[in-house]
Amino acid sequence: MNFIKNNWFSEIQDELWPGQMFSLKIKEVLHKEKSKFQDIQIVETETYGTCLILDGIIQCTSRDEFSYQEMIGFLPLCCHPNPQKVLIVGGGDGGVAREVVKHPLVKEVHQVEIDERVVELSKKYLPSMACGFENSKLKLTIGDGFEYMKIHKEEFDVIITDSSDPIGPAVSLFQENYYKLMKNALKPGGIVCSQGGSFWLDFDYVKKTMDGCGKHFAKVAYAVTSVPSYPCGHIGFVIGSLDPNQNFSEPVTRFTKSQIDSLNLKYYTSEVHPAAFALPRWVEKHFYK
Amino acid sequence: MNFIKNNWFSEIQDELWPGQMFSLKIKEVLHKEKSKFQDIQIVETETYGTCLILDGIIQCTSRDEFSYQEMIGFLPLCCHPNPQKVLIVGGGDGGVAREVVKHPLVKEVHQVEIDERVVELSKKYLPSMACGFENSKLKLTIGDGFEYMKIHKEEFDVIITDSSDPIGPAVSLFQENYYKLMKNALKPGGIVCSQGGSFWLDFDYVKKTMDGCGKHFAKVAYAVTSVPSYPCGHIGFVIGSLDPNQNFSEPVTRFTKSQIDSLNLKYYTSEVHPAAFALPRWVEKHFYK
Repeated sequence: MNFIKNNWFSEIQDELWPGQMFSLKIKEVLHKEKSKFQDIQIVETETYGTCLILDGIIQCTSRDEFSYQEMIGFLPLCCHPNPQKVLIVGGGDGGVAREVVKHPLVKEVHQVEIDERVVELSKKYLPSMACGFENSKLKLTIGDGFEYMKIHKEEFDVIITDSSDPIGPAVSLFQENYYKLMKNALKPGGIVCSQGGSFWLDFDYVKKTMDGCGKHFAKVAYAVTSVPSYPCGHIGFVIGSLDPNQNFSEPVTRFTKSQIDSLNLKYYTSEVHPAAFALPRWVEKHFYK
Repeated sequence: MNFIKNNWFSEIQDELWPGQMFSLKIKEVLHKEKSKFQDIQIVETETYGTCLILDGIIQCTSRDEFSYQEMIGFLPLCCHPNPQKVLIVGGGDGGVAREVVKHPLVKEVHQVEIDERVVELSKKYLPSMACGFENSKLKLTIGDGFEYMKIHKEEFDVIITDSSDPIGPAVSLFQENYYKLMKNALKPGGIVCSQGGSFWLDFDYVKKTMDGCGKHFAKVAYAVTSVPSYPCGHIGFVIGSLDPNQNFSEPVTRFTKSQIDSLNLKYYTSEVHPAAFALPRWVEKHFYK
């Protein structure tokens, strides 16, 4: 169930976050349609800017999206010694592409998004994110990430999966065989980073995703970032590396504060990077046992 | 405005967090009264355990309170070389006292809470927090923190202010003259730590509180912790030290993981400590300019 009532949009999701609900006050519903894959709503909110909602779940708002997009991009990119060729799976709003193309070592970015309508609507209503699609480093393919990776072996340095939550169409992106497919699409020493859910919500599901990743990747970790419009106000990333000596919490590319500002990064810094991997004791004990 | 409707409690606060709202599904309203100071509700929720609500604002839930209580306690305690004597202002649920008494160097804890009813109701409905009041290190005074500090000069090593939000009765606890009063109640080299609001919400208000602290304390910083039941899913602390050489992000008392487990700390570790001070670039630029 999800709804707009008395100008408030409420995000109710009994399976993923029972008993809690976040709501945003709406100025105007800008667009509403059912695409081939999902229900799409774009709303203008009172205090969170423009908001993209897929199947009743908030994907991003223009007020806080940068913390998610910068972190899912720069955490893996700064862990890889030379992330020249990057694949983004999902990310139809363009925000992750906008961040990934900024990294000075990145030469080519390939993106596969299944739902063309999300891309088209983001270009129209979320231009500050969709500007990522305009960059000359980026090549966008509309299609299925699974099929795409089956025919692109050992090609990428980093693969970023910017998916919706593990319910409905995105559920397969959290499973072990998806990690196997990514491993095969990576060059030696490659790194993957995926939206990994919240440890406050489904602890065991995050652990299961990490274990699935760990079957194919030598090193696995979990990092978090603060995003007020996501359930519990934060979101995590599952990150895996083929390099058995990987230390995720020490970025191999470090930026000075003036470089951070030149790159127009508002959240990520070389100090925020290690901090994202420092987990509460009860989480650390469970995830790394 | 705040209300319970169709078994959901919704936290609407047009002044502090306009346009957004967090709601918890309620099993049962355990208690409801208007004390001399505030409106008190205690509810049993579906998925967040027991929840204390003051003037319509969630103060703590038994599911996530430890991340707040441990951090507001251990951040300043582990920054002080010898925090023998501690004052807690507010904190009527007992959770901060429960954490502070754990610290091996702490010998005496004095607590001043203005609303006796919060203490009494917490003992009845929130025993896992109110157990803090049972410890032999603790002396509880029912009264006004301002008046208490006026007659206790240069007595404390650390003062922790566990207040509600800066609206209504708690507003004075965010102002410059409160920091002056705390400075006078501290011994040389003393440290204060106060609930400091969220940088996602009122950026300028947090900065103003830090500036008020900075007029009386040689070093000031801001740290964050993740608390899903608070607005934006996190909360910050304004921390000040009389020691001009203080480096807050390097704890002077460090604990091994096995010590952390013996102290029954579920959130705080000696690695989470520095991570709490690593702020997003846009916040850091504004707060430390």
